[in-house]
Amino acid sequence: MVFVGFGFLMVFLQRYGFSSVGFTFLVATFTLQWATLVQGFLHSFHGGHIHVSVESLINADFCAGAVLISFGAVLGKTGPAQLLLMALLETVLFSVNEFILLSLLGVKDAGGSMTIHTFGAYFGLFLSRVLYRSQLEKSRHRQSSVYHSDLFAMIGTIFLWIFWPSFNSAPTALGDGQHRTALNTYYSLTASTLSTFALSALVSGDGRLDMVHIQNAALAGGVVVGTSSEMMLTPFGAVAAGFLAGTVSTLGYKFFTPVLEFRFKIQDTCGVHNLHGMPGLLGALLGVLVTWLATHEAYGDGLQNVFPLIAAGQRSPTSQAVYQLFGMFVTLLSAAVGGSLAGLLLRLPFLDSPPDSQCFEDQVYWEVPGEQEAEVQRPLQSEETQA
Amino acid sequence: MVFVGFGFLMVFLQRYGFSSVGFTFLVATFTLQWATLVQGFLHSFHGGHIHVSVESLINADFCAGAVLISFGAVLGKTGPAQLLLMALLETVLFSVNEFILLSLLGVKDAGGSMTIHTFGAYFGLFLSRVLYRSQLEKSRHRQSSVYHSDLFAMIGTIFLWIFWPSFNSAPTALGDGQHRTALNTYYSLTASTLSTFALSALVSGDGRLDMVHIQNAALAGGVVVGTSSEMMLTPFGAVAAGFLAGTVSTLGYKFFTPVLEFRFKIQDTCGVHNLHGMPGLLGALLGVLVTWLATHEAYGDGLQNVFPLIAAGQRSPTSQAVYQLFGMFVTLLSAAVGGSLAGLLLRLPFLDSPPDSQCFEDQVYWEVPGEQEAEVQRPLQSEETQA
Amino acid sequence: MVFVGFGFLMVFLQRYGFSSVGFTFLVATFTLQWATLVQGFLHSFHGGHIHVSVESLINADFCAGAVLISFGAVLGKTGPAQLLLMALLETVLFSVNEFILLSLLGVKDAGGSMTIHTFGAYFGLFLSRVLYRSQLEKSRHRQSSVYHSDLFAMIGTIFLWIFWPSFNSAPTALGDGQHRTALNTYYSLTASTLSTFALSALVSGDGRLDMVHIQNAALAGGVVVGTSSEMMLTPFGAVAAGFLAGTVSTLGYKFFTPVLEFRFKIQDTCGVHNLHGMPGLLGALLGVLVTWLATHEAYGDGLQNVFPLIAAGQRSPTSQAVYQLFGMFVTLLSAAVGGSLAGLLLRLPFLDSPPDSQCFEDQVYWEVPGEQEAEVQRPLQSEETQA
Repeated sequence: MVFVGFGFLMVFLQRYGFSSVGFTFLVATFTLQWATLVQGFLHSFHGGHIHVSVESLINADFCAGAVLISFGAVLGKTGPAQLLLMALLETVLFSVNEFILLSLLGVKDAGGSMTIHTFGAYFGLFLSRVLYRSQLEKSRHRQSSVYHSDLFAMIGTIFLWIFWPSFNSAPTALGDGQHRTALNTYYSLTASTLSTFALSALVSGDGRLDMVHIQNAALAGGVVVGTSSEMMLTPFGAVAAGFLAGTVSTLGYKFFTPVLEFRFKIQDTCGVHNLHGMPGLLGALLGVLVTWLATHEAYGDGLQNVFPLIAAGQRSPTSQAVYQLFGMFVTLLSAAVGGSLAGLLLRLPFLDSPPDSQCFEDQVYWEVPGEQEAEVQRPLQSEETQA
Repeated sequence: MVFVGFGFLMVFLQRYGFSSVGFTFLVATFTLQWATLVQGFLHSFHGGHIHVSVESLINADFCAGAVLISFGAVLGKTGPAQLLLMALLETVLFSVNEFILLSLLGVKDAGGSMTIHTFGAYFGLFLSRVLYRSQLEKSRHRQSSVYHSDLFAMIGTIFLWIFWPSFNSAPTALGDGQHRTALNTYYSLTASTLSTFALSALVSGDGRLDMVHIQNAALAGGVVVGTSSEMMLTPFGAVAAGFLAGTVSTLGYKFFTPVLEFRFKIQDTCGVHNLHGMPGLLGALLGVLVTWLATHEAYGDGLQNVFPLIAAGQRSPTSQAVYQLFGMFVTLLSAAVGGSLAGLLLRLPFLDSPPDSQCFEDQVYWEVPGEQEAEVQRPLQSEETQA
Repeated sequence: MVFVGFGFLMVFLQRYGFSSVGFTFLVATFTLQWATLVQGFLHSFHGGHIHVSVESLINADFCAGAVLISFGAVLGKTGPAQLLLMALLETVLFSVNEFILLSLLGVKDAGGSMTIHTFGAYFGLFLSRVLYRSQLEKSRHRQSSVYHSDLFAMIGTIFLWIFWPSFNSAPTALGDGQHRTALNTYYSLTASTLSTFALSALVSGDGRLDMVHIQNAALAGGVVVGTSSEMMLTPFGAVAAGFLAGTVSTLGYKFFTPVLEFRFKIQDTCGVHNLHGMPGLLGALLGVLVTWLATHEAYGDGLQNVFPLIAAGQRSPTSQAVYQLFGMFVTLLSAAVGGSLAGLLLRLPFLDSPPDSQCFEDQVYWEVPGEQEAEVQRPLQSEETQA
């Protein structure tokens, strides 16, 4: 799922479609293998063997999600060797961070607002900061979409939208919990989609919609309930969260991305800060709030599944909420440190980084079909006229 | 599912891809929220609360299906505010009509030949009649496809084809009934696809196939068994029904759509009358026939699930068949009245309807990337030659 | 699934997108119906009736897979009447071959390395040999891709990749066996993807990647474990097999396809020999090896499901391995003879084969939208400037 969605979501660049889809494919498969080893070592290493199961496959998939989010921040400015090194480092750090949060701190984060989205986004942003290119202007004319590339990107959007409820509910307990997770995610997504449409028309000046907002911000509702969708968020809470996430995300694309680039020198190609960073942080905070409000009455027997430590009497809802908040800061810290260090390593000169004037360009890495369709069709049609 | 399918099915217009996908997305998410409320009020309102479940999600999805069918009839000729008002009204009427049929009349309509397809199509057609534009000729040059837009549309077709068996069987009882529904739908779809290919070549004059027929009429087999796929239709019956539906639908595109426009002043952009209207009515009549033929011997214990009122001895097969027929007329009547009234409301001047010369055009509502790929690529290639 | 994947995988040709998707659709639906009858006759004909179930649907789907593989070899060089005749003949032979292998010889082949991939590929290749066109050079300028057609093809690739684990595990026993099959397939696919990327860059001369390799060879890992994924292949074995398959397949595209055409006079449009032929044979041999190594200790109670004849004491692992090998040769023989005979029949003059200069061209069979987008957009934009 991650493949289709992320791959096509990034196809919006006019001359970077092959790389967007191809490198997503490369980085994702590499991460899936490597994460199986790393996570297996941390979670299921018994008697000299790593035990694999469908669950380890899902966990590796989540790790690939985080790596692809970081890829979104540096899209078009990095070569495949750099990306593989990034995936190598990020997978280790992702797994360690996830291990600290879920296993050591007992934090709940089923859909990964913290472990996947916040981590992936800020890892990528700090990485992009270190790799800042002051001469990127030379490739700016390629950093836009064309009509068909935007339609391809919508394939990615709609796929992610559809599968997000399954994505958030995959690691939760079967039965009630899984249904609740799927429904909360779904209500949040509908709300973020609607608020994105409304905001996109409002902020544009002439009332016209911006495809970039629809492609991305509409999904923010899935990110924001990543932590809390398993909990008793209530449909109203999910709708409110989704509405807020869509709003923040759309405003981020319009106003914050330029600030990020010119003030903070962070070039964020896909706007992952708007789709994953801010909604991820919001989602973590929402998780803190909903955890704090948890009661035995509201959850009943389900408390055992959602908050086993509270059910066992080892933690109060308040202390669990503090742990959730602490988990968010651990995630931010490890993403910032890890992303910066990874950025330094990725600047090593023998990793084939594309020159400033050749960013967002497929021909550097791919044998691109030379002729254009328009030129090829003309002789064909005259041929038909003769026939 | 509904999103991918319908969204991309409508992308065939050359300059309306953003709106087709985007407004589908907007209208569908709005309908999902609103239908959850409306249907929850009608079906699961207990003690001041609406109870939601995965089932209410499926029901809302079906309602969104009907609204998107109506959208197909007015595609390219309506603005987003008009579409949202249409969705608002149609959702209420859809839910009331469904409530009358399924709950009050005890009509069976698992896959929605009546409640979804017939209702959605005729609602849209009557709406389109009221919104008739005599000057649409000014935008006619945009009302055709280009090569790549037809390929995008085939993504929609194939998705709908694949998921139609799941779609028809989603609301049926688990086990035998669900398998029977899926198999019947699937046989009917294969038959309608084959008859569409045959007919499309036959009616074209020079033996060449028309992509519009393949994109649409191939799906008519899914529509026609919407009511009866749950019943003992037999594979032969399913194949015959699918064959008939593909034939009627293809002939409709070729001969009936122009009549509809010039005689009845109904401009049906996507030809929903051919894909949903006529096959939906056929499906309703087929349901009447198969219900009439139902016997205790053929269904055995399954009768309880398929026809609970017959199993309980409250109705004979003949009286159930009469109720089915009555349900069809109720659906037609409510679609006609509702669509006409909605059309009058949609003509209110403050709803931003596009001018006649700007129909089927994305630039009215979207910030469309200005440069074309062809123009952008040329300097790139010369740049490469220099490098 | 088969539809989306194969249909879009073949869309890479610049002027054959309608035919690729459309004829895939036509051939697949025809095969699904016909295979249900033929296989029903062989497997589930009791008391004058064919019994259908979801299982017969899956079997028919597998047969459609084989027919579509053969279609890949002759893509662009055959008309729809030829393709339907091919599907008619191949379905019968596929079902007979499958019956001999699975029912008479007791060979295990869950994911169809032999019955689907090897059979489909060599049937198509022998067919293509008989239909050899020495004047194909006249259409060569159309036998390449354009930028967007390659992106469409990647939709097919990624879909097949995602669903391959389900595809291989569909016919296996529920529970442990199905999980093992899915995991093995998935590890093999990740390995073949990575080896394809590496090899594609290595063999290109200038280090650039070739989209054709990524689109196809990345999937070879799914083919190669078709026979053995159900068995105790171990993750390491799956990765090794996938790595080997990706390597062989990429090298095949680079070096062997030209040899095949100019030396053996086999024109293989989609390179099915590289994606299905060689990896299929490798998969069959891998199945022989893994079968030979089977022990009661390794499988435990699962032996009953995977190798019922060994569990019942009727065969030793070695004799089962010999049967597996024998099954491979039976498959090759029937594919070769069947493909050649089918080729002779397809040369019948009244089947509308396209002329040499009109291969890989949609306009022969489809009403292709005449105007190009580029020409249509220009007046639009000037219109907007005036407005």
